[in-house]
Amino acid sequence: MVLTSETLEQAIEHLAKLPGMGRKTAQRLAMHLLKQSDEDVLQLAQAITNLKQKITYCTVCYNVTDTDPCPICASDKRSNGTICVVEEPRDVYVIEKTNEFKGRYHVLGGVISPLDSIGPNEIRVKELIARVSGENEDISEIILALNPDAEGEATSFYINKLVKPFGVKVTRIAHGIPMGSELEYIDDATLSKAFAGRNVF
Amino acid sequence: MVLTSETLEQAIEHLAKLPGMGRKTAQRLAMHLLKQSDEDVLQLAQAITNLKQKITYCTVCYNVTDTDPCPICASDKRSNGTICVVEEPRDVYVIEKTNEFKGRYHVLGGVISPLDSIGPNEIRVKELIARVSGENEDISEIILALNPDAEGEATSFYINKLVKPFGVKVTRIAHGIPMGSELEYIDDATLSKAFAGRNVF
Repeated sequence: MVLTSETLEQAIEHLAKLPGMGRKTAQRLAMHLLKQSDEDVLQLAQAITNLKQKITYCTVCYNVTDTDPCPICASDKRSNGTICVVEEPRDVYVIEKTNEFKGRYHVLGGVISPLDSIGPNEIRVKELIARVSGENEDISEIILALNPDAEGEATSFYINKLVKPFGVKVTRIAHGIPMGSELEYIDDATLSKAFAGRNVF
Repeated sequence: MVLTSETLEQAIEHLAKLPGMGRKTAQRLAMHLLKQSDEDVLQLAQAITNLKQKITYCTVCYNVTDTDPCPICASDKRSNGTICVVEEPRDVYVIEKTNEFKGRYHVLGGVISPLDSIGPNEIRVKELIARVSGENEDISEIILALNPDAEGEATSFYINKLVKPFGVKVTRIAHGIPMGSELEYIDDATLSKAFAGRNVF
């Protein structure tokens, strides 16, 4: 036994399991928490417990939410016939921050990745097709906003193939030069995409 | 509202208060926890709650502990009349890891730092003097193992002055060149200390 408190040891062990957290950082956090007020620490513990006990998934878009359907799906202002397809709830968050998109979302909960044995049935593609073909929403456009990596591309192609027969327009967010960057430092693939996707000025 | 879940927002806010944790990291952790099993997440929350509810401070050495007195103070093998004075419980941990020290500890819970309005009464100096002058422990040596910065030095001098009258030997851990380092990169203050503290070979 190195530490004089088994409880402290356990807290460090659990904290060290978090991503990007080593034993030293976990130790520092545990020591920090020890010095905080009871209230602060118990609130943190409660907030973590709530993550599992209060959060559910929206049965329309599969985003994380406290109420089902989620505020976005429940809002009349967002029902403009457009669905933005994203991989994870965090993508909804970053898109919402731009205040640019006014439609609804569909959270796949992953992308097709044979190496990780994630096929089309492991992600919420069926549910997307059900939304497109169903009568609850009058969908005219699907915007694919998946990450531009191999898995994201494959998933985009797959969804496009499935959705096309329903006569719905399928678009993808533009790939090109990020704002504020310099051409000199842009990789070839991005530059090619930027040329292929050029717009009339 | 940017996130669709107030609960998630709260968890992120609480996590972001931890040291070295920004909003982005907190978000990543919260999203990670959402994906973990109920059991794992609840165990983490419980471990954090336990930090405040189960851990107490040893009434002998003021180290964090589940049982009072702590296992080190309770152990007969450690009662060799030596007390190592450290700033924080984490220092006990690093010293214990070396397996070098076989006496007991005294955790001050801080160092004298007028700038942070921490005077001798805010740290556990009185309690140390009580141990030295008391009859429960037959103390022959106090080893000062405080950090070699201005506050640590000042606290060391202060404790030395108070303990001396009791005829107890006061020593300090050696300051000098760390093992495995190169002289070329050592700062002047450390090199001076290393020369002043040279030993017969």
